[in-house]
Amino acid sequence: MSIAGGVALELAGRHLLDVAELDGAQLELVMRTTEEARRQVTERQVPAPLTGRRVALLFVEPSTRTRTSFEIAARNLGAEVLSLDAGSSSLVKGESIADTARTLDALGIDFLVMRHGQSGAPWLAAQCFSGHVLNAGDGWHAHPTQALLDLFTLRRALGADGLRGRKMVIVGDVLHSRVCRSNLWTLTAAGMDVWLCGPPALLRGFAEWAAQMPVDRRFRVTDDLAAALDDADVVMALRIQRERMADAQLTTLDEYVARFQVNAARLRLARPGVLFMHPGPVNEGIEVSIEVARGPRSLVTEQVANGVFTRMAVLSLLAETDAHR
Amino acid sequence: MSIAGGVALELAGRHLLDVAELDGAQLELVMRTTEEARRQVTERQVPAPLTGRRVALLFVEPSTRTRTSFEIAARNLGAEVLSLDAGSSSLVKGESIADTARTLDALGIDFLVMRHGQSGAPWLAAQCFSGHVLNAGDGWHAHPTQALLDLFTLRRALGADGLRGRKMVIVGDVLHSRVCRSNLWTLTAAGMDVWLCGPPALLRGFAEWAAQMPVDRRFRVTDDLAAALDDADVVMALRIQRERMADAQLTTLDEYVARFQVNAARLRLARPGVLFMHPGPVNEGIEVSIEVARGPRSLVTEQVANGVFTRMAVLSLLAETDAHR
Amino acid sequence: MSIAGGVALELAGRHLLDVAELDGAQLELVMRTTEEARRQVTERQVPAPLTGRRVALLFVEPSTRTRTSFEIAARNLGAEVLSLDAGSSSLVKGESIADTARTLDALGIDFLVMRHGQSGAPWLAAQCFSGHVLNAGDGWHAHPTQALLDLFTLRRALGADGLRGRKMVIVGDVLHSRVCRSNLWTLTAAGMDVWLCGPPALLRGFAEWAAQMPVDRRFRVTDDLAAALDDADVVMALRIQRERMADAQLTTLDEYVARFQVNAARLRLARPGVLFMHPGPVNEGIEVSIEVARGPRSLVTEQVANGVFTRMAVLSLLAETDAHR
Repeated sequence: MSIAGGVALELAGRHLLDVAELDGAQLELVMRTTEEARRQVTERQVPAPLTGRRVALLFVEPSTRTRTSFEIAARNLGAEVLSLDAGSSSLVKGESIADTARTLDALGIDFLVMRHGQSGAPWLAAQCFSGHVLNAGDGWHAHPTQALLDLFTLRRALGADGLRGRKMVIVGDVLHSRVCRSNLWTLTAAGMDVWLCGPPALLRGFAEWAAQMPVDRRFRVTDDLAAALDDADVVMALRIQRERMADAQLTTLDEYVARFQVNAARLRLARPGVLFMHPGPVNEGIEVSIEVARGPRSLVTEQVANGVFTRMAVLSLLAETDAHR
Repeated sequence: MSIAGGVALELAGRHLLDVAELDGAQLELVMRTTEEARRQVTERQVPAPLTGRRVALLFVEPSTRTRTSFEIAARNLGAEVLSLDAGSSSLVKGESIADTARTLDALGIDFLVMRHGQSGAPWLAAQCFSGHVLNAGDGWHAHPTQALLDLFTLRRALGADGLRGRKMVIVGDVLHSRVCRSNLWTLTAAGMDVWLCGPPALLRGFAEWAAQMPVDRRFRVTDDLAAALDDADVVMALRIQRERMADAQLTTLDEYVARFQVNAARLRLARPGVLFMHPGPVNEGIEVSIEVARGPRSLVTEQVANGVFTRMAVLSLLAETDAHR
Repeated sequence: MSIAGGVALELAGRHLLDVAELDGAQLELVMRTTEEARRQVTERQVPAPLTGRRVALLFVEPSTRTRTSFEIAARNLGAEVLSLDAGSSSLVKGESIADTARTLDALGIDFLVMRHGQSGAPWLAAQCFSGHVLNAGDGWHAHPTQALLDLFTLRRALGADGLRGRKMVIVGDVLHSRVCRSNLWTLTAAGMDVWLCGPPALLRGFAEWAAQMPVDRRFRVTDDLAAALDDADVVMALRIQRERMADAQLTTLDEYVARFQVNAARLRLARPGVLFMHPGPVNEGIEVSIEVARGPRSLVTEQVANGVFTRMAVLSLLAETDAHR
């Protein structure tokens, strides 16, 4: 049944709410299953293990890539997809997350893929849903499939065993980033030397957090971009939003660009062949120069393409847990 | 062709605009067809009588359960579903209902499922549409498939012949409720002893209406919840909206809760084993306590699940009328 | 592979951005392919040349008929359709058109059907998209499939060879009309005698444009409706928007109606049997009387129905260009 073939291992839980729920062996399982999904799509030989299953996409915040990626992934596996966008669902008339989850459960939905502005919303839904809940991004908190697709993209670029000890810099609006929080877990699990960088106000609390981590989960926090980029193997820029400049204690976006934009000149501080990543949507010319974003070292397009395979893997692995219920 | 098998009877009209169009024999036909749809879905043996037919969902007001329920029902029957949500349709640039209906007709849509804030909108559409129009809720006026699924849920709980003479209480914002208006018709048709209850301002005009009904269609109207609940077999709560408190001549939502919330203490006035229903979305802690809404006597989940079967029945019965056109 | 059968000819480019890209032979190819699509749909024998292909509908402006028409056309050809409506896509959080196009490309979308308020947006997208971009209306600029379906409708009504020399009047808000701009190209290509008419402020710049056209592309511009209608064979009215009355230097909509509404009395100036067209949505009682809009000479319904066939033709012809890439 599994697209990974006869593996004994399986995901621990019924839901995918946070990557921090996955141990090393489970991360490895997701990676191998993603590789298998990639092969099947490339060879146009995808079995349809989700035939007759219904996947609801409940995106209360806007999204192009994550929503479309989940939709394609679910269809590739043979599932039926129902879209429940924010504006047209009863959530706009004050329906609670719990009530929505119970309703979708009673309607026979098997997978609930959910994006919500409120941190923790998918946990609430999971308590009222007998199928599988997948967190597609909740508030500032977590974005597990993004971290998984980023990990997969890095393994494709550097080799499955090539991540340990490599220096990875995440630069930008760390404070408000669920992508960064989820990536911290998977990248340190893979043994990378992770550095977070940005204006001090956008790093608030992260140094204290780092200090409390067990030694094999440590990461570095700095507002000194030159120090962060020194000898870096990979740089990931995060989206900067104009409306957050006040939080960042910067007076203008120009000031951010002047101090923190990832561009070709700055990347000369890093290792030759340094790779560039971005979770999108990219503000070209703001957090990254056009030259770098579209350059030969940019993995942005691979990230998007791998998102489909990663979500196929996660959906099919969760489906396998049904056999034991 | 019919999922009900070789029935001679059929729905009177080409559209389903109001349950009041259905006589007793037709209600019985819908109930039997719904039972058959339930059996087919349960046994995963649904024929696909709507293969090659197109169902457009035009929801100008937000909805989760009704829209999704119609979508699943239509797909279960093999139809192709097109979503035309409010925000993205030309209705937002002032296109008239009639023009939209004519356009969808020319595009080859066979079924137009329509929710609209304006009472009577589906009638307007029906005049310009050569296929079938299904009213999925129009203003305060009617919500025929909700009344049908409620009737089906009651028959499952009390037996097909078990409704006559039973006391059914509908409590809440009766004035603005299309669910209540449609249920009044089907519940009195089934011979139930129907009581409407709520703050006097939210019952405005209903006592006068009741007085004009033929004797077999009578219902009772009261603002005395204790009297209504006395010996009740079923209690249905209606959604209370904060913004309607002024209409209700109540100063706060707390006042409503204090006087009219359906909770365990109050239900002790009713018969032992009293059933609870709600059309959703439920405001738990407002019109009903969490304990009752999720308790063992609550039929809320059954209502949602039965909605799919009821809509399958209605769609397939309307499709059968095509043979005679 | 082609629904037109073994034609040697094919569309020049990979995209359909503007009808002005199509020469006479290519217009003829689209017309014949549309006729073939019409026949196949009527006989319910549509091959599925787009099986396994993905069509994304990205409508940043609202639309009922164009969006639904493309969706039905794509599904008729066997394609998988993904909807990316304005409100729910990342475009609302400032994602650029280029970034959206690159993302959809990386996700494996084959056809990007795009409506956008900004003139030229589809050209931008085409630069970042390795599949096919179809312009479904950009700003005031172009609406190529509308012009193609109008041409097809005229050929069905007047005969494939019956357009040359016929007088065609387009009346209304010419200035803001992408439909008018695209139709100017195809109607003059077909040899029609095209007249544009409306309040002078809504014709601004068109007389100068006409004067610069090569002689076989000339059209006439006038604010004298009687002169325009004199001996006309076809009259097309354009949508009038209340909010444009100031641009039109008219004080009220009533003034527009009094001077420019297409109605039965005015049509007596035209040839007997004059045909009426409108791209929709129609404001009945404003730019056209109800009597004319719904009368026996109105082609409005045919236009909508032919839209599906035209879009099937365009999608399948673009798909054929893949063989040579």
